Amino acid sequence: MAEIEPFHVMEIQRRALELEAAGRRIVHMEIGQPDFSAPQPVIDAAIAALRRDPMGYAASLGLPALRAAIARFYGDRYGVEVDPRRVIVTAGASGAFIITLGALVDPGDEVLMPDPCYPCNRHFVRLFEGKARTVAVDERTHYQLGLAEVQANWGPRTRGVLLASPSNPTGTIVPTAALAAIIDWVHGRGGFVLVDEIYHELVYGEPLPTALALSDEVFLVSSFSKYFCMTGWRLGWIVAPERYVRGLERLAQNAFICAPVPSQHAALAAFEPATIAILEERRLEFQRRRDFLVPALRDLGFRVPITPEGAFYVYAGIERFGLDSHALAHRLIEEAGVAITPGLDFGANQPEQYVRFAYTRAIEELREGVDRLRETLTV
Amino acid sequence: MAEIEPFHVMEIQRRALELEAAGRRIVHMEIGQPDFSAPQPVIDAAIAALRRDPMGYAASLGLPALRAAIARFYGDRYGVEVDPRRVIVTAGASGAFIITLGALVDPGDEVLMPDPCYPCNRHFVRLFEGKARTVAVDERTHYQLGLAEVQANWGPRTRGVLLASPSNPTGTIVPTAALAAIIDWVHGRGGFVLVDEIYHELVYGEPLPTALALSDEVFLVSSFSKYFCMTGWRLGWIVAPERYVRGLERLAQNAFICAPVPSQHAALAAFEPATIAILEERRLEFQRRRDFLVPALRDLGFRVPITPEGAFYVYAGIERFGLDSHALAHRLIEEAGVAITPGLDFGANQPEQYVRFAYTRAIEELREGVDRLRETLTV
Repeated sequence: MAEIEPFHVMEIQRRALELEAAGRRIVHMEIGQPDFSAPQPVIDAAIAALRRDPMGYAASLGLPALRAAIARFYGDRYGVEVDPRRVIVTAGASGAFIITLGALVDPGDEVLMPDPCYPCNRHFVRLFEGKARTVAVDERTHYQLGLAEVQANWGPRTRGVLLASPSNPTGTIVPTAALAAIIDWVHGRGGFVLVDEIYHELVYGEPLPTALALSDEVFLVSSFSKYFCMTGWRLGWIVAPERYVRGLERLAQNAFICAPVPSQHAALAAFEPATIAILEERRLEFQRRRDFLVPALRDLGFRVPITPEGAFYVYAGIERFGLDSHALAHRLIEEAGVAITPGLDFGANQPEQYVRFAYTRAIEELREGVDRLRETLTV
Repeated sequence: MAEIEPFHVMEIQRRALELEAAGRRIVHMEIGQPDFSAPQPVIDAAIAALRRDPMGYAASLGLPALRAAIARFYGDRYGVEVDPRRVIVTAGASGAFIITLGALVDPGDEVLMPDPCYPCNRHFVRLFEGKARTVAVDERTHYQLGLAEVQANWGPRTRGVLLASPSNPTGTIVPTAALAAIIDWVHGRGGFVLVDEIYHELVYGEPLPTALALSDEVFLVSSFSKYFCMTGWRLGWIVAPERYVRGLERLAQNAFICAPVPSQHAALAAFEPATIAILEERRLEFQRRRDFLVPALRDLGFRVPITPEGAFYVYAGIERFGLDSHALAHRLIEEAGVAITPGLDFGANQPEQYVRFAYTRAIEELREGVDRLRETLTV
């Protein structure tokens, strides 16, 4: 436990709360959840189910209707046929990572992942006494692993690769050709490829094919939290190679018994055309925010060499400001009343030179944040 | 993963489903959840919250109002003052065990627990590369560990003791004097005592003091699933020594971010007097079922030397019937249409000689089950 660090952003949030309690207005650019609540059809489905269903335990793999709906979603949106038996509904993406890595990682095993990345990924591997072997990445590879990085870092204890596309904190994707090459090479060595597509439906350029289009052997983790705006509902899913499903079921029985059942009933409405129409509107709104924020940050002197293709984050270099990210984040919350996340939360690859901005607030608020940053940073 | 067994009861349930699909009526005496849904005030609170609250992430330790309500519950029901800061709301008791054992168990550490016990307890310890050191218990110690058993089995790698009171599958409690003696001795050696009170409010005799009355240093795990009849909502809690709370918070952030938020809002109504009145009615109904079932099973030749004091299970010896528990359970589902759980699910201590009955059905149904058992077993 001692090796699992706290999230540094918590410190910023605590300070933001204090300042707000003292009457100060804070612009929040640190928060990793949409400012939209679940779409109304989802809420309505939850309420209807609460009136109708006793909400006992569900099967550990999930409500059959929800597994089928998730499988259909891959057909409807990506043209990929997925057998519902390969879908496992989980207690958030957290639950998905726990049982997938629990199934794949033995003590001493190494898992390759890029640095920066979402910190829990490292911690999950550590939880099972595995070793997260992080590989420093930068703008030259879009802050992602490519085949060359995977090959150069694959060692005798390496068991697999964990990729997130788009990534938190960088918002960049793994190009499909690169992903296909990694999958081929890793599978050829008997390794696993675990692809985090938690932000996959929040991509703003060309539609991005899912990793499921490339291989039936990848492990895919996704979530209702981000695109579907259901963070507090704690619901995610796995698509796994079919022969792993029984093993994952056993782990799910132990780790969380079943995903929260009211949330599962609500999620049945998440794939309805009326819901998707709402979510696509919101996706375009996130795109407008990105298109406002990225040039504005560059204009202020933040280094954003790659325009992020997805998620709702900008990972920005701060060399220009002569402060490390911890100091800058604290200066900005105090002086500008703007909350951001220091790079420290995402790994050991020059975290002092990066901060993460989230565009999970309306453009007017982002503009206010940028204005305040300008005032503070150009004094 | 390979070491984590499936639950044998799943096989029985699958067969029950097949038989029901074929038109046969099955009496369910295998199911470990109440036949009551959440009390209406809880459902109403959930619906009201869904209309009002965006259901974003909650604090990892839980909604402050819910932590306070849980703390107050210990005052109201047991006269024990608990600081709300020691309460952590979790994604089911599963989430509570994962983070508690994650905090307490290092690779190679041993944790003492009775056999039989709830199988996930062993698996959770194994998950962290610890070793569940199970101690065979029988009716002489009410199927629980006493101080003598703890002392006799404490080894150089033993870090702590896990007790469940009342226990699943036996329904027996740890007498308060025995628990106090164990706590004193184990704490004296620097070990931990983790007490599973998931069934603690379902006790039918003398009110049973909570372990929190004995020491501020115990780790207590409880749940909204059983007494509060909220299984599918996946909500539990921990009361921990205060100095562990920050560490547990870090693990909670990683393991489940926060417990399901709709469920947390619902649970705020779980401690209201109107809800408790409903639940106390149900507790008396469970007691009536126990008082019907235990003598009826004894009458059929099942060995039930200790009348279970709580939970909703009877762990019954089957020596009399000349079959092992696997064979008996399968014979009873096929011939009597009665589903029960073979002892195999609860450990390695003569599991072939025990089966578990659950009294989670109305007395009329239990009576039908007993009648069918009589017909099959006395031919």
